[in-house]
Amino acid sequence: MENKETEINELGEFGLIDRLTKDFPLKNPETKKGVGDDAAVLSFGDKDVLVTTDLLLEGVHFDVRYVPLKHLGYKAAIVNFSDIYAMNGTPKQITVSIGVSSRFTVEHLEAIYSGIKLACEIYGVDMVGGDTSASVTGLVISITCIGVANPEDVVRRDGAKPTDIICVSGDLGAAYMGLQLLERENRVGQGQKDFQPDFAGKEYILERQLKPEARKDIIEELRKEGIKPTSMMDVSDGLSSELLHICKASDTGCRVYEDKIPIDYQTALMAEEFNMNLVTAAMNGGEDYELLFTVPLTDHEKIEKMKGVRMIGYITKPELGCAMVTRDGAEIPLKAQGWNAFQK
Amino acid sequence: MENKETEINELGEFGLIDRLTKDFPLKNPETKKGVGDDAAVLSFGDKDVLVTTDLLLEGVHFDVRYVPLKHLGYKAAIVNFSDIYAMNGTPKQITVSIGVSSRFTVEHLEAIYSGIKLACEIYGVDMVGGDTSASVTGLVISITCIGVANPEDVVRRDGAKPTDIICVSGDLGAAYMGLQLLERENRVGQGQKDFQPDFAGKEYILERQLKPEARKDIIEELRKEGIKPTSMMDVSDGLSSELLHICKASDTGCRVYEDKIPIDYQTALMAEEFNMNLVTAAMNGGEDYELLFTVPLTDHEKIEKMKGVRMIGYITKPELGCAMVTRDGAEIPLKAQGWNAFQK
Repeated sequence: MENKETEINELGEFGLIDRLTKDFPLKNPETKKGVGDDAAVLSFGDKDVLVTTDLLLEGVHFDVRYVPLKHLGYKAAIVNFSDIYAMNGTPKQITVSIGVSSRFTVEHLEAIYSGIKLACEIYGVDMVGGDTSASVTGLVISITCIGVANPEDVVRRDGAKPTDIICVSGDLGAAYMGLQLLERENRVGQGQKDFQPDFAGKEYILERQLKPEARKDIIEELRKEGIKPTSMMDVSDGLSSELLHICKASDTGCRVYEDKIPIDYQTALMAEEFNMNLVTAAMNGGEDYELLFTVPLTDHEKIEKMKGVRMIGYITKPELGCAMVTRDGAEIPLKAQGWNAFQK
Repeated sequence: MENKETEINELGEFGLIDRLTKDFPLKNPETKKGVGDDAAVLSFGDKDVLVTTDLLLEGVHFDVRYVPLKHLGYKAAIVNFSDIYAMNGTPKQITVSIGVSSRFTVEHLEAIYSGIKLACEIYGVDMVGGDTSASVTGLVISITCIGVANPEDVVRRDGAKPTDIICVSGDLGAAYMGLQLLERENRVGQGQKDFQPDFAGKEYILERQLKPEARKDIIEELRKEGIKPTSMMDVSDGLSSELLHICKASDTGCRVYEDKIPIDYQTALMAEEFNMNLVTAAMNGGEDYELLFTVPLTDHEKIEKMKGVRMIGYITKPELGCAMVTRDGAEIPLKAQGWNAFQK
């Protein structure tokens, strides 16, 4: 093949997806929403059926030198469940396709599946199919998750309105710092036979990287409190990137406050050790799988009472743009520096 | 990773899938049928929702040296539609995940997507989502298809009964012979600058390999004739392998007649040129994407009138086993020699 054409990294991931999917008009009444949200929204009978899919490739999304295979399976399932919760739905089924090279044994595959199985048990999801193939290259895991919701409950990215409060669950940046730690210890330990990585006191950030959870609990609590977010996403590519998605889809701007961004103590310590900017890690690190959502001002008091949810800013008119307000009151425009597998 | 354990090719593809998926009990009332058919059967509202998925890996399932990328996209979609038709359903949506290395350009990806788009247009399917990622190795295409059916219309593998007639659409072995031809011409042409492959008079077998169709027409005709098969599959791994699947799932045996197997003239010529056993190619070649189904004896006359469907044998009690009856009346047990990506 000749290579005088457009290189993929000229467009970036989101630009590429836009270009490849722009010419696919939707034809079926059973399709309510296609490309452009955490999950597609299909309509069968009186139910909305949600579909999301994730492709994980060895050497790009994970490194088997320091990711235990059971954790890899668990995480591969969780990231899909998270997309269904982000639509305010309930994950019900997954299909699991795996491409595997001959350096893996059946026991290795069983380890991956045991992680998937554990995730399915905890979240009440059925594994209903898939495809298993040899791979001449690396390990490939492709999972598709099907979820369900009542049509009136589905929350998309495009419903945020000016004055809505921006909320986020849990804390941010920990998974990213966990990855930095794993990569460092892997570098340090290379070639050393009895190397023991130094993970003491860093269990939280490691767990956030290796064994994240989907925020089913937050969805349940929102429902219990009678709150239906006006827009919602999960934080997979980083808070900055996701805020820009919501604001673009909703045709709004936003302001988030630096000093409101929830950050765990271990994340902060690790950033200091690595001499990294903590807020950058929290805003752009990604893989947090927390829920980012907006609610009307009138839900302010209800949100205030919820544990594990922080109000971090508000939605504005589009002409104000998207910015973070620093501790000293300066406004820094948000950029989607999110994790981009196409960057060199 | 150590490698003192069970090698994957010791189990084979089906053995591996059995072992990996056996410990996944189904929990949700929304799941009617999980692993073990052409598609999973889910239940949402008053509809059955069908889900199937296929993983295609460069170097295992296709070779970009002789598969045009547009055809690759078309075929990747078609093989999924075929699985939905094989459940007597209608494909409605697909998700498309692609992992792509830097030797591919945006234009290459657009060629793949143009094939997917064409397939979607012809079969009335919406592309609703997916995932796009860099790959450090080869091209990866993972497609999931969602279909729909009325619950009473779904046809599974496990409903065949003794005395049922075994039917197959179209003809068999052509896609396999097309692949042999493509591989030969690729070998012959290597290193020759202006090499012109010799494809004259072989267009049919090439098209069967490069641009197969899903048998939507057969499903529609069966419906029109008021025939509901007792079991059905599409022929992707070869007729032998699929007959064994149906008989295992239905707890039956079968007899198919060598002289009833539908084979095209070009397939026969090509097999002769390659000095290959024609019936073996037709029984085990695979990638035919024809429909294999069983009907009650009482539908005999209706089937006889249908164009493009051949009656090739009948279902027996399980103790009689599965066999092909040769022209001279000998019985040869069927073996699943189907295309196995794990064989070395």
